Amino acid sequence: MNKPMASMDLEDQLRQLVNIGIALSDEQNLADLLDCILYESRRFTNATAGTLYLSDGEMLHFEVVQNDALDTADSTVRNHLDASGFAPLPINDNSIAGYVAGRGTVLNIRNAYNISEDAPYNLNLSYDQETGFRTQSLLLVPMRHLDGRVLGVIQLINARNQDGETVAFAEDIAELLLALASQAAVAVRNAHLRRDLEQAQLETIMRLGVAAEYRDKETGNHLNRMSRYSREIAKEMGLDEQVCEHIFYASPLHDVGKLGTPDAILLKPGKLTADEYEIMKQHTTIGARILSGSSSPLLRLAERIAISHHEKWNGSGYPAGLKGEEIPLVGRIVAAADVFDALASKRVYKAAFSIEKVLEIMHNDTGSHFDPQVIEALDRCLPRLLDIKARFTEDDGEPL
Amino acid sequence: MNKPMASMDLEDQLRQLVNIGIALSDEQNLADLLDCILYESRRFTNATAGTLYLSDGEMLHFEVVQNDALDTADSTVRNHLDASGFAPLPINDNSIAGYVAGRGTVLNIRNAYNISEDAPYNLNLSYDQETGFRTQSLLLVPMRHLDGRVLGVIQLINARNQDGETVAFAEDIAELLLALASQAAVAVRNAHLRRDLEQAQLETIMRLGVAAEYRDKETGNHLNRMSRYSREIAKEMGLDEQVCEHIFYASPLHDVGKLGTPDAILLKPGKLTADEYEIMKQHTTIGARILSGSSSPLLRLAERIAISHHEKWNGSGYPAGLKGEEIPLVGRIVAAADVFDALASKRVYKAAFSIEKVLEIMHNDTGSHFDPQVIEALDRCLPRLLDIKARFTEDDGEPL
Repeated sequence: MNKPMASMDLEDQLRQLVNIGIALSDEQNLADLLDCILYESRRFTNATAGTLYLSDGEMLHFEVVQNDALDTADSTVRNHLDASGFAPLPINDNSIAGYVAGRGTVLNIRNAYNISEDAPYNLNLSYDQETGFRTQSLLLVPMRHLDGRVLGVIQLINARNQDGETVAFAEDIAELLLALASQAAVAVRNAHLRRDLEQAQLETIMRLGVAAEYRDKETGNHLNRMSRYSREIAKEMGLDEQVCEHIFYASPLHDVGKLGTPDAILLKPGKLTADEYEIMKQHTTIGARILSGSSSPLLRLAERIAISHHEKWNGSGYPAGLKGEEIPLVGRIVAAADVFDALASKRVYKAAFSIEKVLEIMHNDTGSHFDPQVIEALDRCLPRLLDIKARFTEDDGEPL
Repeated sequence: MNKPMASMDLEDQLRQLVNIGIALSDEQNLADLLDCILYESRRFTNATAGTLYLSDGEMLHFEVVQNDALDTADSTVRNHLDASGFAPLPINDNSIAGYVAGRGTVLNIRNAYNISEDAPYNLNLSYDQETGFRTQSLLLVPMRHLDGRVLGVIQLINARNQDGETVAFAEDIAELLLALASQAAVAVRNAHLRRDLEQAQLETIMRLGVAAEYRDKETGNHLNRMSRYSREIAKEMGLDEQVCEHIFYASPLHDVGKLGTPDAILLKPGKLTADEYEIMKQHTTIGARILSGSSSPLLRLAERIAISHHEKWNGSGYPAGLKGEEIPLVGRIVAAADVFDALASKRVYKAAFSIEKVLEIMHNDTGSHFDPQVIEALDRCLPRLLDIKARFTEDDGEPL
């Protein structure tokens, strides 16, 4: 519930500011964070409505729009309006938010319909005409970073007093809101940082993947399919959602170690000699070495997949000859997804098998090559796997 | 100057807390941040001395030790003591900091020399005996994250009143300090995040480098030397320190595109045919593609180096035939460093040249192959380049 302003003394307000600062800094997700900033700002000033804008340097983008007066739905959803319908504003004096972003200044307007002719900004009230809402008081503060950059603007509309009447925003609340906006700016910057970190970890995976493609060009959509098959099987086995996503991103690197396999072996048309096969097998350990020792869970998962995707359930695989549950679960999942796709696709040395034939072969090898529980999960999610196969198709010719 | 407690009312204190929270969240460097947390905590409570510990899960590590009473030097250096001399403490009740970290609780001790026999913790006062310092009052608070984890402990020693007398810490200051410690915990977590981001970007570079080594094994210490040569030349040309570091990390990837060059060409012992040479030249564009379009300045720099390190000052290079300052400066620097090392080192097809001979060749090609200003810088920092050459040596045989 909104606490009416008048009953909050400065001490309460400051204490609240400290707590809001801590809470904001901990919000992991940018959209939730922005929502929370606007909600706390409105609660702090007892404002009926508000808008939060983020700047991309030249334009202000509507990120969150909340309005208690226009939405009578459950207040736990914070009376959201869809912000994506509003066109971005240029950062200039043609709008009040653009003025605040451009000047880095606070703007406290007592009555939107009684603006001086000399005001240095332009106030557009078409929103009122479109919605029937009546804007009266406005308070806008820049979300200013310590280095001076304005990351966005918080715009609050129609403060209410204890009796629920619309009043002007108090002058002293503006200063406190500016402190809240600075805390918000820090939190937004940190949310960007977390997004960048996630992105940077994906980037390692992605760039190694691009490099590996130069060595193994004939895989076509193989990686697109097998990574999705792996994710579906992992989901079907009840793995944590984040782990399933990591499996999706990391599994295309299972063969990255082939970057270290000589062309003469990698591209040999016929059967490999025993010595050549030993060198080929090293792609598992080379892949693990390329990916080794990361502090990122995503890369550690990729390392486990690279080293273990040729192990077999009965211990006859390589490189370590691990057996049963000694083999990491992700390795067992990727092994099944990889072989499933190889059998169901055309290769230079074979045509594509029919799904019946693929399943027959894989069921025959269950308990020897494959983990029975993985194959059970594969069977259960087969319709989803076939959807994926249909989406990432290529010229496979007629199935045998 | 430390503001005496008695003159600060709660409103001032809360306002200060808000500002400290914002300031802490903006501190970029972890060591500076920890220093700042302890300093602000002492200022806030008017404490003579203090220690900040960080937890690694099992142990508490001394990170910052400050003591006004033991150090009469310029107070702007915040009366640091070297924290590295103290052995870490286990997180258990055998020390007061271990007790606070383990229990996540506040500890306010009026008199260190008058502890009840029943106290659940052990207080070690050997520091007093070693230094002659007299510990009296102590206040310890956990740096607790919102998720409950204790990231560290702030320990404050000997509060002073307005007359400079040592007194106990007020009970109500403990609660406020706990809020400060929570803000500090958020800031520490964010500093870790920034460090992780930097690390993740380096990791992309590092792992691509490991992969590339598998294709180009004969380079030995070449990458170690040429990346350091490049950094020295960049420094000598007055480039920004951060850019020089980025050049150091990014330049070893200049040939990463060779991951896409067939063995038959990459490893061919004799001279390449014209067609083969065209394929070889593609390593510049392939490298740029592997590195392309990153949001990380480090990777963007690596991309520029990969695409431009074979361009020549007179426009006769590849892949684009850029001329003079059309070639990115980093490309011109890396080109010189790369050739300098190739000439000065033994290769399968040549012995190492003497430095005199290397410089003669490079000066001859200045204005045609090399940027004259880069070569001037190289000449000026030659002694530093020779130091690097001596440090990263290999069996080069006798120079010609």
